[in-house]
Amino acid sequence: MSDGNLTLHTDKYEINMMYAHWVHGTMNEKAVFEAYFRKLPFGNGYAVFAGLRRVVEYIQNLKFDESMIRYLQQQEENYDPRFYEELRQFRFTGDLWAVEEGSVVFPNEPLIRVEGRVFETQLLETAILNFINYQTLIATKASRIRQVAPHDTLMEFGTRRAQEADAAVWGTRAAYIGGFDATSNLRAGMMFGIPTSGTHAHAWVQAHETEAEAFEKYAAALPNQVTLLVDTYDTLKSGVPNAIRTAKLLEAQGKRMNAIRLDSGDLAYLSKKAREMLDAAGLDYVRIVASNDLDENIMFNLKAEDAKIDAWGVGTQLITAADQPSLGGVYKIVAREKDGHLIPVIKISGNPEKVSTPGKKDVYRIINKQTGKAEADYIALSEEEDVKMGRKIKLFDPVHPYINKYVEQYDAISLLTLVYRDGTQVYELPELEHIREYHKRQLSLFWPETLRKLNPQSYPVDISVAAWEQKMRLIEQFKG
Amino acid sequence: MSDGNLTLHTDKYEINMMYAHWVHGTMNEKAVFEAYFRKLPFGNGYAVFAGLRRVVEYIQNLKFDESMIRYLQQQEENYDPRFYEELRQFRFTGDLWAVEEGSVVFPNEPLIRVEGRVFETQLLETAILNFINYQTLIATKASRIRQVAPHDTLMEFGTRRAQEADAAVWGTRAAYIGGFDATSNLRAGMMFGIPTSGTHAHAWVQAHETEAEAFEKYAAALPNQVTLLVDTYDTLKSGVPNAIRTAKLLEAQGKRMNAIRLDSGDLAYLSKKAREMLDAAGLDYVRIVASNDLDENIMFNLKAEDAKIDAWGVGTQLITAADQPSLGGVYKIVAREKDGHLIPVIKISGNPEKVSTPGKKDVYRIINKQTGKAEADYIALSEEEDVKMGRKIKLFDPVHPYINKYVEQYDAISLLTLVYRDGTQVYELPELEHIREYHKRQLSLFWPETLRKLNPQSYPVDISVAAWEQKMRLIEQFKG
Repeated sequence: MSDGNLTLHTDKYEINMMYAHWVHGTMNEKAVFEAYFRKLPFGNGYAVFAGLRRVVEYIQNLKFDESMIRYLQQQEENYDPRFYEELRQFRFTGDLWAVEEGSVVFPNEPLIRVEGRVFETQLLETAILNFINYQTLIATKASRIRQVAPHDTLMEFGTRRAQEADAAVWGTRAAYIGGFDATSNLRAGMMFGIPTSGTHAHAWVQAHETEAEAFEKYAAALPNQVTLLVDTYDTLKSGVPNAIRTAKLLEAQGKRMNAIRLDSGDLAYLSKKAREMLDAAGLDYVRIVASNDLDENIMFNLKAEDAKIDAWGVGTQLITAADQPSLGGVYKIVAREKDGHLIPVIKISGNPEKVSTPGKKDVYRIINKQTGKAEADYIALSEEEDVKMGRKIKLFDPVHPYINKYVEQYDAISLLTLVYRDGTQVYELPELEHIREYHKRQLSLFWPETLRKLNPQSYPVDISVAAWEQKMRLIEQFKG
Repeated sequence: MSDGNLTLHTDKYEINMMYAHWVHGTMNEKAVFEAYFRKLPFGNGYAVFAGLRRVVEYIQNLKFDESMIRYLQQQEENYDPRFYEELRQFRFTGDLWAVEEGSVVFPNEPLIRVEGRVFETQLLETAILNFINYQTLIATKASRIRQVAPHDTLMEFGTRRAQEADAAVWGTRAAYIGGFDATSNLRAGMMFGIPTSGTHAHAWVQAHETEAEAFEKYAAALPNQVTLLVDTYDTLKSGVPNAIRTAKLLEAQGKRMNAIRLDSGDLAYLSKKAREMLDAAGLDYVRIVASNDLDENIMFNLKAEDAKIDAWGVGTQLITAADQPSLGGVYKIVAREKDGHLIPVIKISGNPEKVSTPGKKDVYRIINKQTGKAEADYIALSEEEDVKMGRKIKLFDPVHPYINKYVEQYDAISLLTLVYRDGTQVYELPELEHIREYHKRQLSLFWPETLRKLNPQSYPVDISVAAWEQKMRLIEQFKG
């Protein structure tokens, strides 16, 4: 069930640039690119990185096969025919560093760093961004939803509203990383080992003479996992009473009904009424599942109103990240080879936040030794030694450099891990369960103020003095 | 490059219901489902149907293979082992009717109608909705963008922000149906024959000592398709002057530069200034391409300000349908077999607009013979003859039944086409170019008031008296 070879899943301009480098004999010059985003989504205080598995599998399968070569030949009469020979030989020979999936990450820090021939580093741009932008967005949304319901069961139900098939499966994987417990999508279950859940639709009830008959038949077929959807006709007058009767029939067989599901109407009111009715019937073990266009804000309010909901089916709002359906991640060149050495490069822009930070960089999480909590992320040029050695470093805000301090007692955790070295995968992709646990541990490094849903405290992402000074120097150079 | 077998691309509850039908021996009873949406996206006056090709290919490949059976066996200990034998034999044996891709469609009319054994009609729900919800959404957004720029070149540039790989390719196909001219995504070009376009990124400029050198080298490599991105350092002071020099170099070789691309800053101001500079240099043939988070509203305003933009690269806002990233299409049972006959079924809801319209239905576009324009869409029970015979029919608004009129001089175009009969595909998928042309012709059936971007005139979707009376009867029955 692999998506196979996605080599042409790229923008045409990448191939045009590869071609132009080939023409001019610069294709094997080294370049360093970094992928990062500039702004946190949803007004959240952090993001959750996801998409690395997809990137790794994409690179594993990177190869221009003959059908692709033929397509390009038909398409593009302007390429010299010898260029296709080069494409036939193409393979990724560079290094790729990445933050681990499940990591808590912040704006402007490199999440993926690719170093290799400009011929190959350029090609990867489109697919890397496509994968990490979407998956990071959904993992972040899921983590946000988890924050408002720390102890409830969270189920991803969005396939029918997802933006096509890949979004459904990779999105639900990202949701699982971010803290969801299960998905309704069986293909995702099979591909990734995510627990699946699901009961029945309104159509099951409508396919029978009466709701009572539909419930009984469903319970007879699957007596060990009965969750009944109670809103086909009238939740409190028909659905819940029929569900209670079914639960009693199950009890007579020594079985316990799992839950009822509310899918419309006022979920606060209905859940409280349904809870009362179930409890009055001695069915306090029957849980209440809610669905219907839920998101973290609705859930937060429902919980504040003491809605009696134990499990949540979250669809559209999660799988499309409806309140902000894209993460604007970018992939920018930060260094290029000149006379056998890497030199930093910059992109200037009228928008100050779009000016790139030149140079090949690493990112460290600075952990305060007293509190054990993360104090800031610190971006340094790869050749800098102070932070690696644990020496005194200056933390300062690149937007407001007068906000700064020195730290000495810290642990610096390097966030980038080597994934490909010289084109060979050297990183073993962790099990999905491991990634999910890792995300939970990551959260524990941060103060609740950073994690809160509304108006979170802004977490500092600082850059080293050397990286800052280099950036200023290059800006001056281009202004001159 | 097929996505292959998506049989498990479904919600678990579909399989649970299939299982329960199997247990009770009702799996081969007939059922009719209809897919429709309830509300137009983006405040638009119409939607553009897309996704049928994907649905047809999905059904072609529908088969539980051994790896899927094994997965379900491991997953679900509650299923009787004999059920898997049934899944092994499974194939789609029903009828499927659909609106053609590129059709202009409206809320509450059946876009897809599936009739077959409940065992199979149920399974299809999730995937059908996943495909048509997304693709219809994007085709609609694209058509909306086309309305504000009827004569310009429109290019889909969104892959890096799309919600994963399928969205990029199927989304750009939908955009092409809706009126776009090209895509940057090469895989979509190869899969569907969509023209591709693309030039170079900032990275090309940054990979050279100077912008002038970068432009010259790009033009030397691809002299017949030179579009230069002019905003890496300073659009008017550096980018445009360097592009003009490059154009002159090309002229000296008897070649013409294609365009410059603006990707940041104030596009109205910059495009007018750049146009002046190009014209002053005798380069009135060099076109101006703009990109940077464009959508139909920004484009409309830029055109109102007389921005000198000839071609538009539209990314994020189109490919994610950012202002409304999901179409809430649903798939509802409307009839089921009882004693060998189909009987209508209803879903009641506290929300009046969510009460389904029972019965197997057809939908007709009523064309006024005098004007040649569409007057209303008319939903009738499949057995009704009046509209098929062109007899007098009553058009009335189901929400406000007192708004009504009779029509006699009309042509009724049936919108649903038979795609699968008894499990066999009987419909030949049209060429993509044909679909795109068909969409244009579809638009010509409507008055400009229906097609306008803001506050469009609401187009009537009426239901027949017989369908209406049947619905009222079933509502009464359930209230009683």
